[in-house]
Amino acid sequence: MTEETFRPEARAPRGFADKRAPQLRSERAILEAVSKVYESYGFEALDTGAFEYADALGKFLPDSDRPNEGVFALQDDDEQWMALRYDLTAPLARFAAQNWETLPKPFRRYAFGTVWRNEKPGPGRFREFIQCDADTVGSARPEADAEIIAMAVAGLEAAGLPRGQAVIKINNRKLLNGLLTAAGVESAGQKLGVLRAVDKLDRLGAEGVKLLLGEGRKDESGAFTKGAGLGAKAIDSVLAFVAAGASSRSATLDALSAVIGGSAEGDEGLAELAAIDAALKGLGVADDQALFDPSIVRGLEYYTGAVFEAELLLTTTDEKGEAVRFGSIGGGGRYDDLIARFTGQPVPATGFSFGVSRLAAALKAAGRDAARAARGPVVIIAFDQAHMPEYFAVAGELRAAGIPAEVYLGSSGMKAQMKYADRRMSPAAIMLGGDEIAAGTVTIKDLDLGRELAAGVSDNAEWKATRPGQQTIARGELIAAVKRIVEGG
Amino acid sequence: MTEETFRPEARAPRGFADKRAPQLRSERAILEAVSKVYESYGFEALDTGAFEYADALGKFLPDSDRPNEGVFALQDDDEQWMALRYDLTAPLARFAAQNWETLPKPFRRYAFGTVWRNEKPGPGRFREFIQCDADTVGSARPEADAEIIAMAVAGLEAAGLPRGQAVIKINNRKLLNGLLTAAGVESAGQKLGVLRAVDKLDRLGAEGVKLLLGEGRKDESGAFTKGAGLGAKAIDSVLAFVAAGASSRSATLDALSAVIGGSAEGDEGLAELAAIDAALKGLGVADDQALFDPSIVRGLEYYTGAVFEAELLLTTTDEKGEAVRFGSIGGGGRYDDLIARFTGQPVPATGFSFGVSRLAAALKAAGRDAARAARGPVVIIAFDQAHMPEYFAVAGELRAAGIPAEVYLGSSGMKAQMKYADRRMSPAAIMLGGDEIAAGTVTIKDLDLGRELAAGVSDNAEWKATRPGQQTIARGELIAAVKRIVEGG
Repeated sequence: MTEETFRPEARAPRGFADKRAPQLRSERAILEAVSKVYESYGFEALDTGAFEYADALGKFLPDSDRPNEGVFALQDDDEQWMALRYDLTAPLARFAAQNWETLPKPFRRYAFGTVWRNEKPGPGRFREFIQCDADTVGSARPEADAEIIAMAVAGLEAAGLPRGQAVIKINNRKLLNGLLTAAGVESAGQKLGVLRAVDKLDRLGAEGVKLLLGEGRKDESGAFTKGAGLGAKAIDSVLAFVAAGASSRSATLDALSAVIGGSAEGDEGLAELAAIDAALKGLGVADDQALFDPSIVRGLEYYTGAVFEAELLLTTTDEKGEAVRFGSIGGGGRYDDLIARFTGQPVPATGFSFGVSRLAAALKAAGRDAARAARGPVVIIAFDQAHMPEYFAVAGELRAAGIPAEVYLGSSGMKAQMKYADRRMSPAAIMLGGDEIAAGTVTIKDLDLGRELAAGVSDNAEWKATRPGQQTIARGELIAAVKRIVEGG
Repeated sequence: MTEETFRPEARAPRGFADKRAPQLRSERAILEAVSKVYESYGFEALDTGAFEYADALGKFLPDSDRPNEGVFALQDDDEQWMALRYDLTAPLARFAAQNWETLPKPFRRYAFGTVWRNEKPGPGRFREFIQCDADTVGSARPEADAEIIAMAVAGLEAAGLPRGQAVIKINNRKLLNGLLTAAGVESAGQKLGVLRAVDKLDRLGAEGVKLLLGEGRKDESGAFTKGAGLGAKAIDSVLAFVAAGASSRSATLDALSAVIGGSAEGDEGLAELAAIDAALKGLGVADDQALFDPSIVRGLEYYTGAVFEAELLLTTTDEKGEAVRFGSIGGGGRYDDLIARFTGQPVPATGFSFGVSRLAAALKAAGRDAARAARGPVVIIAFDQAHMPEYFAVAGELRAAGIPAEVYLGSSGMKAQMKYADRRMSPAAIMLGGDEIAAGTVTIKDLDLGRELAAGVSDNAEWKATRPGQQTIARGELIAAVKRIVEGG
């Protein structure tokens, strides 16, 4: 193969998807609605660059040559490793540490944008996606957590999820920590093992979690997972704790204080949840919108207090035809140590993040993006090169009236042009032949009607009487006639 | 330094900027306005991933180990080189080649998003920026070029540039090519040298270009640039050609036909410009909005016919205090070979691209983003932890009335809270102490007024009479009173 004839294959890299108009429309509508809500809460927009220095992202081990896997990293020409951001929180921590002196404090920002994960791609598993985050940096108050939760509730509702189709589940890392300390469990490794076991409650049930809290568990395939090694009493406490969730926040608080009471850290966690509950009441957030759920773990890494998980209650149908819940589309919590990585000074922070593409997919699966359905432009058929200026003038008139329009600019004949208009989901095609121009008329073909008839939506006879499929009218009546079609009248 | 105390420095990578709210507001307003225009012309949104395979981007040399400089490239775990997109046209070509069979043809798409260039960063020179493109793929008609130009005109106007502050300059690559062929210049290298020389007209003037078209030119420092080596007659033709621009498109066409006439390629270029002119008239684009300018070069690489350049006529002040024109903010043209790289089949295409951040900066420099100025949320002062639910209720009432609002959530006292509200550019601060709550009243401090008085905008006495800086009113009148302040009444 010589260089002259080298033909690359036209393909997108694995795990990177091309997004067409309907998906983009849906994602943009979500971002616009949520941004408006977040700004109404006094959060300001921030966008950081795609790259961060790898050490700033926190995935860099000072004694290794390369940043570890999971990020897209490359070496800059001054030998420094840079990596594409894998979330919006690490860049915020870097930004806040860099600009702390000059920022209004607390600093409230929201952000949306692409993040990248260098993971194994697969069907539906992408290596880039859009996240939308809101964070308050510099407030240790539980009210800051409550406000983030209230914004998540309002944001998801504005994005198109009616009340009752999503719930924010809230927990506090200090509760389980305090309970384990009170039960004599001090090892960080053991505590992590407990979090890992609790995180599997949905999948394995209480019996499976019990095994993982103790010696360990053998799964159906015979593979053995070593457990956290708790004693029987500690196991019972943890199981009682994760089962303490009730249908109201205040009932859960009561149940928790019976289980937790005694350790300083647990009491602190309880007091924070109580303050969150009070603030949520002030913010008008009801129990069906935000609940306390002690079984929520939400990642193991950096949360230090309250944690939140947003769960969609929408159901969709899986490949076996069974209804399944969509599940988590985001979460967050309090992370008081992230900015201290840079400055050495602890700065309290809390935030919430959700997956925009995932929410768009959920709304689509639930049939809730219908209002955003694609509608193509009106197509002006190109009959005759000599009349092109007239076609463009018609397109301009339609646009001025708020109706998207285009002149067909390919080189195919009448039939192919009509097929093109139909594929573009055009409401109507405009025909201006020499005869029409001479007579001062114009012919309009109602393509919406054609599609409705083809889909059996309308009764043929009734429609034919009131809405002609094709009409030739005076040129001056064009805009009004097209408007009637576009508006479905 | 041990691993435990490793503290990365908080800094963004070189050439990557953090964008705060005012800049984002301005960029988003541009993208929203331009998207609306482009959609009204029947262009559909498309977004491709950040990465392309390096060979698909066209910067990959099959016989080299690494893609060349200028892009951010890395090797995937299957050894394939990927690179971040450096524009939106190369990914479009890949997408169109990959999906050609199933696309409506011509395929019209617009796109906006981040592109990356691995170039030397410097003050005001970034390595990532936002571009906004519109392209028609699959139409060889000059009307497709005209439509792209009309959209560029309409888009820039919608983005906030009033008529007369921007002009699209149009040329056709075939004119100069035909003229050079007719003058006996056949070498591709010589033709490229001519383009390079013409491209320097603005900077060097006709005399400098004349030298570069001939033997070469020595600059002030004594450095010599070798010229294109044309003979005297060819040089005169080229200089007459680049000087043929007139104040109307038809006058330029007349002048050009006197200079160009004779070569087949030149005549083809002239006929295309005439068709573009006719279509622009149909599209309502006047001479002061889009002109023919034979001196426009617009990059050397892949344009095959018409080329466009968008020039801002806005002036700004440079570091020496002198008025300077902003100059080019984008351009485009016809590129009929880009998709053939993949498929071997030529596919005609034309498009326009502009720099969003650059346009935002131009609007800001010209003081045209004033309407988008930052306005912070109303801040509810946090006097007393016991009253937090009441503060949140007030914030909720304000938001429900369409007024962004927040409760102060830091831990500082009254004075610092007022300073915070002022730094947030809050229109007002709300004070609800125990006395106010007991009396059913609320105190509002008008911070807009404070800023106006400080800036000397308002006459102190007059304002004090009609607009109190601080007022205590009945709780039920809160929303109306804040609205009066926000609306400046």
